[in-house]
Amino acid sequence: MESFSYWIGMGGIAAFAITAVLVLAPKGIDLFGATVLGIITAVGGGTIRDLILDVPVFWASDLNYLWVAIGASLVTFFADSLFTRREIFRLMLYVDGFGAALFAIQTADKAWGMNFGRPLAPIILGIVTAIGGGLIRDVLAGRQTLLMTRELYATPVLIGCTLYVALLALVPEYRSVGALGCVALIFSLRAAAIRWDLAMPHWLMTNSKAG
Amino acid sequence: MESFSYWIGMGGIAAFAITAVLVLAPKGIDLFGATVLGIITAVGGGTIRDLILDVPVFWASDLNYLWVAIGASLVTFFADSLFTRREIFRLMLYVDGFGAALFAIQTADKAWGMNFGRPLAPIILGIVTAIGGGLIRDVLAGRQTLLMTRELYATPVLIGCTLYVALLALVPEYRSVGALGCVALIFSLRAAAIRWDLAMPHWLMTNSKAG
Amino acid sequence: MESFSYWIGMGGIAAFAITAVLVLAPKGIDLFGATVLGIITAVGGGTIRDLILDVPVFWASDLNYLWVAIGASLVTFFADSLFTRREIFRLMLYVDGFGAALFAIQTADKAWGMNFGRPLAPIILGIVTAIGGGLIRDVLAGRQTLLMTRELYATPVLIGCTLYVALLALVPEYRSVGALGCVALIFSLRAAAIRWDLAMPHWLMTNSKAG
Repeated sequence: MESFSYWIGMGGIAAFAITAVLVLAPKGIDLFGATVLGIITAVGGGTIRDLILDVPVFWASDLNYLWVAIGASLVTFFADSLFTRREIFRLMLYVDGFGAALFAIQTADKAWGMNFGRPLAPIILGIVTAIGGGLIRDVLAGRQTLLMTRELYATPVLIGCTLYVALLALVPEYRSVGALGCVALIFSLRAAAIRWDLAMPHWLMTNSKAG
Repeated sequence: MESFSYWIGMGGIAAFAITAVLVLAPKGIDLFGATVLGIITAVGGGTIRDLILDVPVFWASDLNYLWVAIGASLVTFFADSLFTRREIFRLMLYVDGFGAALFAIQTADKAWGMNFGRPLAPIILGIVTAIGGGLIRDVLAGRQTLLMTRELYATPVLIGCTLYVALLALVPEYRSVGALGCVALIFSLRAAAIRWDLAMPHWLMTNSKAG
Repeated sequence: MESFSYWIGMGGIAAFAITAVLVLAPKGIDLFGATVLGIITAVGGGTIRDLILDVPVFWASDLNYLWVAIGASLVTFFADSLFTRREIFRLMLYVDGFGAALFAIQTADKAWGMNFGRPLAPIILGIVTAIGGGLIRDVLAGRQTLLMTRELYATPVLIGCTLYVALLALVPEYRSVGALGCVALIFSLRAAAIRWDLAMPHWLMTNSKAG
């Protein structure tokens, strides 16, 4: 089980790097920029988390995270005609969403276990881990960050982490099955958003009220 | 006294979050983005300070900071017609300026007390705490940061923190009254800038020399 | 020798701050913004490195780094007509490149010595130290970061750090001469890029393939 989620996590890291290179490729980046931005996207959120938790950064003690991010970036750079095929790109979006779901719940679980700012801080760190790398990528690449779009990416993470923390507080004996359920919930919401192009409803946007 | 400055600090946190949501609302943000950017603006500067000082982040041991930032962001999101009333928005700018003044002097005092890079580092950390959250907000939202504008926001903080550090070095017995005086000085300069729309004089700008 | 590289390092810090103020001056910045961005450019990369290594930030225990960055920023601000003279600006680009080379190899050496994520993490931290400050500067100033350009700045650092780490792994008895050689290699590549306006070849860019 532990090892299963480890390999799923590596898949998520790869998907973070692959989607990073794919969304940046049309702007024109070189091999070096693509690899750096792939690595940052893949491990950036978890790095901020580890700095805030004041624990060693996760990629220093297990270099597989870096190797996977580098490998995925390079393959995507040289084979992007493959990944830009519509169905492959879509598949990567789903894997990316699964990775975000997994890392968010792992983080909330870890922070809860460390008794770090319960109950609010584990939720916030879950979100930071899921979206932090993508935010840094977009800022460094001069793209609009997802915080300014209607894309349904982080809201599912918020819902899933909140539910998971409520569960840890109220029925801790269901921790394992609850973790699986919350990962599945986040992923389902994200997958629905990808599948049907769902976005935040207009009444939850500020400019709808102005308009 | 301790408790008084604690509550003033909570007011500053709320004002940071409120002004964040207000300045971003015209660009069109959703409920989630508003709350995340409100939290980041409110606690971002202090978080960078704590990471550099290598102390636990302040919001993990006292969740009130997060609750206040979240509450202020949500209220502002749903009631922004109230806050965009000119006089209320102005009031928030003053409270925001007071919060920045208070956090800067608190930080300089804390770093001095830890004997952290005296005398220069306490001043720099004071500035980081006062403006760091707003800088991250503007970068994530794609706005021009205040470092590139003539707005008089950070310069009063620099003056106040420098004076406070000089005072701690020369007449440490006046620490308490000096802290109050420096907070008052920073706030007065900032309030004057808000009240009379003061900006950096042109001879302290690079492009005036080119033009 | 130790002391020699210390003073070279101070020259690199000064060059980082000077080039920062020079590239930002045409956008119009005030004295405060120039100094803050000069400091951030000079010490930003090393600060991220120290946070990730979980060691005290290097500028708190030796304030000379800050004084040099502040002094260089102020002098450049007031004397920019001097520095914008073509030959002086070029000279600064070379000193900046030498500083980047030196800090990168120093960092790779330090991380290797701490047994931090060998062999990959020392290379990554070397790059972070060399380019981190400039990346933060460009993001705060609203400029395109070098990750999105064809400029040959970071790739020489990657090559030099990789070679140095290979050398530490295979022939550690040549550490000192290897460090000198790798600094010289990075600087030579960067100097050639400055001298002949070299850029990344088009076949290593994504948009060349699209075009």
